[in-house]
Amino acid sequence: MRATIIGGTGYGAIELIKLINNHPFLEVGSVVSNSQAGNNFSESYPHLYGINDHPLESFNAEKLSAQNDIVFLATPSSVSSTLVPRLMEKGVKCIDLSGDFRLRSISEYEMWYKHAPADESLINQAVYGLSEIYGEKINNAKLIANPGCYPTASALGLIPILKSKLADEGSIIIDAKSGVSGAGRGLSLTSHYAEINENLKAYKLGAHQHIPEIEQVLSDEGGSPITISFTTHLVPMTRGIMCTIYVNLNETMKTNEIHQLYSEFYKNKPFVRVRPEGTVPATKEVLGSNYCDIGLHVDPRTNRLTIISVIDNLVKGASGQAIQNANLMNGWDERTGLENIPMYP
Amino acid sequence: MRATIIGGTGYGAIELIKLINNHPFLEVGSVVSNSQAGNNFSESYPHLYGINDHPLESFNAEKLSAQNDIVFLATPSSVSSTLVPRLMEKGVKCIDLSGDFRLRSISEYEMWYKHAPADESLINQAVYGLSEIYGEKINNAKLIANPGCYPTASALGLIPILKSKLADEGSIIIDAKSGVSGAGRGLSLTSHYAEINENLKAYKLGAHQHIPEIEQVLSDEGGSPITISFTTHLVPMTRGIMCTIYVNLNETMKTNEIHQLYSEFYKNKPFVRVRPEGTVPATKEVLGSNYCDIGLHVDPRTNRLTIISVIDNLVKGASGQAIQNANLMNGWDERTGLENIPMYP
Amino acid sequence: MRATIIGGTGYGAIELIKLINNHPFLEVGSVVSNSQAGNNFSESYPHLYGINDHPLESFNAEKLSAQNDIVFLATPSSVSSTLVPRLMEKGVKCIDLSGDFRLRSISEYEMWYKHAPADESLINQAVYGLSEIYGEKINNAKLIANPGCYPTASALGLIPILKSKLADEGSIIIDAKSGVSGAGRGLSLTSHYAEINENLKAYKLGAHQHIPEIEQVLSDEGGSPITISFTTHLVPMTRGIMCTIYVNLNETMKTNEIHQLYSEFYKNKPFVRVRPEGTVPATKEVLGSNYCDIGLHVDPRTNRLTIISVIDNLVKGASGQAIQNANLMNGWDERTGLENIPMYP
Amino acid sequence: MRATIIGGTGYGAIELIKLINNHPFLEVGSVVSNSQAGNNFSESYPHLYGINDHPLESFNAEKLSAQNDIVFLATPSSVSSTLVPRLMEKGVKCIDLSGDFRLRSISEYEMWYKHAPADESLINQAVYGLSEIYGEKINNAKLIANPGCYPTASALGLIPILKSKLADEGSIIIDAKSGVSGAGRGLSLTSHYAEINENLKAYKLGAHQHIPEIEQVLSDEGGSPITISFTTHLVPMTRGIMCTIYVNLNETMKTNEIHQLYSEFYKNKPFVRVRPEGTVPATKEVLGSNYCDIGLHVDPRTNRLTIISVIDNLVKGASGQAIQNANLMNGWDERTGLENIPMYP
Repeated sequence: MRATIIGGTGYGAIELIKLINNHPFLEVGSVVSNSQAGNNFSESYPHLYGINDHPLESFNAEKLSAQNDIVFLATPSSVSSTLVPRLMEKGVKCIDLSGDFRLRSISEYEMWYKHAPADESLINQAVYGLSEIYGEKINNAKLIANPGCYPTASALGLIPILKSKLADEGSIIIDAKSGVSGAGRGLSLTSHYAEINENLKAYKLGAHQHIPEIEQVLSDEGGSPITISFTTHLVPMTRGIMCTIYVNLNETMKTNEIHQLYSEFYKNKPFVRVRPEGTVPATKEVLGSNYCDIGLHVDPRTNRLTIISVIDNLVKGASGQAIQNANLMNGWDERTGLENIPMYP
Repeated sequence: MRATIIGGTGYGAIELIKLINNHPFLEVGSVVSNSQAGNNFSESYPHLYGINDHPLESFNAEKLSAQNDIVFLATPSSVSSTLVPRLMEKGVKCIDLSGDFRLRSISEYEMWYKHAPADESLINQAVYGLSEIYGEKINNAKLIANPGCYPTASALGLIPILKSKLADEGSIIIDAKSGVSGAGRGLSLTSHYAEINENLKAYKLGAHQHIPEIEQVLSDEGGSPITISFTTHLVPMTRGIMCTIYVNLNETMKTNEIHQLYSEFYKNKPFVRVRPEGTVPATKEVLGSNYCDIGLHVDPRTNRLTIISVIDNLVKGASGQAIQNANLMNGWDERTGLENIPMYP
Repeated sequence: MRATIIGGTGYGAIELIKLINNHPFLEVGSVVSNSQAGNNFSESYPHLYGINDHPLESFNAEKLSAQNDIVFLATPSSVSSTLVPRLMEKGVKCIDLSGDFRLRSISEYEMWYKHAPADESLINQAVYGLSEIYGEKINNAKLIANPGCYPTASALGLIPILKSKLADEGSIIIDAKSGVSGAGRGLSLTSHYAEINENLKAYKLGAHQHIPEIEQVLSDEGGSPITISFTTHLVPMTRGIMCTIYVNLNETMKTNEIHQLYSEFYKNKPFVRVRPEGTVPATKEVLGSNYCDIGLHVDPRTNRLTIISVIDNLVKGASGQAIQNANLMNGWDERTGLENIPMYP
Repeated sequence: MRATIIGGTGYGAIELIKLINNHPFLEVGSVVSNSQAGNNFSESYPHLYGINDHPLESFNAEKLSAQNDIVFLATPSSVSSTLVPRLMEKGVKCIDLSGDFRLRSISEYEMWYKHAPADESLINQAVYGLSEIYGEKINNAKLIANPGCYPTASALGLIPILKSKLADEGSIIIDAKSGVSGAGRGLSLTSHYAEINENLKAYKLGAHQHIPEIEQVLSDEGGSPITISFTTHLVPMTRGIMCTIYVNLNETMKTNEIHQLYSEFYKNKPFVRVRPEGTVPATKEVLGSNYCDIGLHVDPRTNRLTIISVIDNLVKGASGQAIQNANLMNGWDERTGLENIPMYP
């Protein structure tokens, strides 16, 4: 099955190419980049020299749909909303890695993203691609809104406790930390080496566009509207996200009870590893893999639950989950092409 | 005035030597290291070649007290408690950078540190050296329990809101992140380069020995017993601590009102910089300096206050605050020798 | 085919497990670690949680040879020399990643390694596993001395020019730089995070044990005894080796002529990528892959050739080349299980 | 004495401000940045909050010369050449940190810098500010061409052996490695965090604009025209330069003889530390200081000398040496304001 990747000069696309190369049923058809169309791909990304030296193509819905079965859009916000309609009408399945189809509420989108939303009918068709939670809907989807990196780590960390009704829903605080690749390849002082190396920064306090996305999925799963506190930090490393999540419990619970609940919840989910009681995961332990690892601790002094949830932001937080969704859409085992062991050290 | 430094092979001592070198009224008398006595100092620390090539000395209370006016103990926990009595009885002033004299409760010390506490009468004499808060007591102290790194950042971030009575005291969560130098020079897999680089780890969940210290100072200043949630993370950088602190407010407040309250509180404290509304500090912005920088944000959606407090763990979190305390004890301007600009980038 | 890995707590073993997991014809039989026998593997390496939770085994030649077809020894120097004889006599093929069987000269081994050498008859049986150069001998080998990391990058960078007789053999200087994982997981101040991060160190000037290994292979291929200058540096990163190599040319040459010569030499070698004229490779461009990338530049002002050769020290410089050799020994395509794209960024 | 800094938004200027703050006889008059004139300085550089919150000024030769005694130009290449004449005619002393006045040969400047050179009469007035070598000329200079970072480390490492006539001048190879801050604050993919972190790159092979500068100073001191091989590498760290230099010796020498020669040469030069035989300096051992540390090793197998020379590129490689030159120009001890101990770790 041939796949097109749009947004070929970004890190999301690069990871997709790596993953598809390892996938038995997918191959890279075209790589599209309007800004660099005509250039050889390996000139922008020399690690692909001898592997993918083809010219980058410009967007052509006609041609792409004729030659490809599935399209991954790894484009900046507000680009997908213009390209997806042209692809959908040709009958191509789309997996969009941007935020354009994630929020059901158009007013929320406008408030947090500050530009025009996608077409509402398409938003309604889109399935939110949190693979472990919405697998059945994804099976039948034609358009996937692939979740954001922070929302993936946050939602997988919180959904079991929310569904159990043990959580005080007003108490949720997510202290999130990310490596710098999450900001992409676009130049900016906040990705400038000498500013970021040996530095830890908090950013976008109360203003991150992932807040409404997290609240939407938590509210859906929790059953009532949830408002969170969410703070993002930039950590001097390339890949990795950790969400340290705090929730007050409605009943007195012990760590092992919560651990049991999570283990049960994720028992058939190969990419969520609930770590043994007394241990917590580090980001490097999922590096380059599609795992989301979760550690749990209840402090008996406060009866507050701390959840540590880690992912590789470019894999489970973006391209890996996109492949997992492609697997589900095609009826393949969701692990197909994603079973590599994390790179360590 | 001559100063002895005990624990001469650790990072705390090295920073003290750097700071004392820059201080107009202090000079390094002896540097003591029982484990490396007799070795040249610059063999262990070649950056000192040509600056301090003297042999390290072994501990001798008699000699140290005869030749020095003040002693800084930068030793591991449980060492100071045996050395300080022998120095105090000779009449030397002591500033202890370890945790041995910080906790007033002996049972808390035993519970969190897991070894025998210091002599109770000395604990009672010790003044907790959080310079901005206890300046008057420090003026007259003979023994300073220099605060821990996390407690310094946490307490300076929280005390103004606690004293204002606007904080819901049961809601305090401190999500703390530290560079690796805080773990010292002792070899351990958790300081091994390939394990830590490109990695973010949470550690000691609910079990960090700074928890009772933070709770003690917050309870003292808040006026009633306070229990916190406190999570520590290891960030792949050498220096720097950030505490991201969450507090529910008892009344509806705006960021500018809280900012005003903090600015007022710290207006005569040269080492606390309350950052302008809308901005938050990054750890690199205090690197190598004695500043504690604080950023504030109230989320109107939750009426929860987020406080970002950053320090250099080896300066304001250890040796710099020790010098600041020495200044106060000697009646010098607290800024003496500490006015260097942070190193950037 | 089942493979045993000996030295299971080191980084070499960990990379072997990752690579074998991706290999269609190999599977991990036992993992041996005398020091941690009985412990669960994923306790030492939590990234393997749920993937390899088996207990580490102790060394038992009888059992290992009965159950496995091939043994990879990722043990420290001087361990393999005692284990290999016991495995060879049982008829098991061995690939040794240590330096114990690389040097033909016993006196050189003693001089540079400072301990007793392996049995001479086994040394004589061992084939030096530089896959691109000794493929035919490797096909028929029973014992492979897998090359060192620096020798791999150095030899692949130099052999074409040496064989062409264009090089002034007395002029060879190899300025080598390595990430810290090359030093292994053993604790040491030179792998201590705060000492290495933000630091660049040269080490073992004129004393590195890879010097005789490089000189042996260069002399073999150049046809006469070659003495090199070789300086190693520790770079603050986890993985990657770059050798910047300087050679005076015997005749006036242009970069494109040298480029042509190298491209021709490596045209059927899938893991050596000679980069286009005017470009040079960076270490990250081979991260996690088995590639050795080479860049070439002749300075017309000096007629000196600069060769930039990069590898991932744990893959092509150790475990990846070991798998490549296993492929050759078994008559499989040398690329089997090794075709993943480098991880970028 | 008041000093103006031009180029106020770059890292060179920031380091000058830090150093001048520590200097007993200098104070910062104005900070000039045409691109950001009017903005508060601490908005661009929040580490200066509360320290320097003044607005950045635009360039005004009249006003600057009336109010200041000395001007430091930390501007990009080709800017100084237009500003210096306007300052010199007002009688202000200038220290230029760019390359505009370093090369005596106008054709070399045009060839390597690819734009128009400065006025030739000013070039002739300029004194090359390598403080340890040209101290007497600097004393009387009105215009200092402050050396480049690589040239400083290279020249201090090579001059003693060149002056001794023991060096084969045609054999000089400088393998140079730099932290990323050397590339400045301007945005570029080669300073983009995710591209540089965990990566080692060689760049500008045979094309670096510091080549003619190094050759000029080496030729001056060696007494005859010298052509070098010079390769630059970008190391994933913020600060620090190491030059690993290779020179064939004309006579058989031992390390201790070379060490003696260097120690003698630099015996009255407080900022050059010739390290004990058997040791070599690491970049972190000079971090934040004005030291140039040198290690020496003669390989008896090749009779080739290896010189390791390290500096902090922003201090001895730029702003620190500029202050050292200001000290010399004003008849102050060259150490004034520069005696801080390196920051370690």
